[in-house]
Amino acid sequence: MSDKIFPTAQDAEAAFYDALERGDYPAMVAVWAEDEEVLCVHPGGPRLRGTEEVLGQWKRILGNGQRLKVRITHQVVIAGPMIAVHSVQENITVEGQGAAQPVMATNVYQRLGAGWRMVVHHASPVPQPARTESRAPRSATLH
Amino acid sequence: MSDKIFPTAQDAEAAFYDALERGDYPAMVAVWAEDEEVLCVHPGGPRLRGTEEVLGQWKRILGNGQRLKVRITHQVVIAGPMIAVHSVQENITVEGQGAAQPVMATNVYQRLGAGWRMVVHHASPVPQPARTESRAPRSATLH
Repeated sequence: MSDKIFPTAQDAEAAFYDALERGDYPAMVAVWAEDEEVLCVHPGGPRLRGTEEVLGQWKRILGNGQRLKVRITHQVVIAGPMIAVHSVQENITVEGQGAAQPVMATNVYQRLGAGWRMVVHHASPVPQPARTESRAPRSATLH
Repeated sequence: MSDKIFPTAQDAEAAFYDALERGDYPAMVAVWAEDEEVLCVHPGGPRLRGTEEVLGQWKRILGNGQRLKVRITHQVVIAGPMIAVHSVQENITVEGQGAAQPVMATNVYQRLGAGWRMVVHHASPVPQPARTESRAPRSATLH
């Protein structure tokens, strides 16, 4: 586990997206808490649980050679003394490909000792304009 | 806004899924905080924001006449003094249809005055076994 300290949840979030853009696995490791209860849901994926499973997947993703540009918009912050929840839209461009693809993410940070670390990242694709005639979700039967 | 009080985040979560199963809109209203910053992402849907938008969508969903059975499994709780995050798998059966459909949800509750209310519900479909040859997410390019 890295001894890097993030004084605020916002610092941890900035480091998370910076690590993602730079494909920097050690920097990604530094962002996450070391705990059996850290959770990560990639867009369209299952829930991964625990540092080993979560970071193992990040290692594969960051090592795939693809470079991403991630622009964060629509941030909403719900801040408590020990836990902070950030909801953001990730606008992701894959290098050499076309328009940015929007992903909605709920990021949870926890204050652990001197600093803040990520404990939950839950991401899901945002429906594209052509597929959203109304604001109703496509799978309303699943609420 | 309802004056119903949920002494714990778990009480608010139980009331949320009970309201969903029973199609009870007033009970659903009672679960949510009244705030411009409440957020809801339905499976495959966009992020809804604010009490009016979030509850307006729940009114449509709960009023569609379909009855759901929701069995909660795989709960992980990250609890703080003011904010609690519950990650759960919702196993949803639509009345008269087949097997349960799994949905992964990140639910955030906030302590407001005397009790706890829901402030974030972020749900996304879990890939079905036939579609998951490996644990890798299907859209790895989107992290």
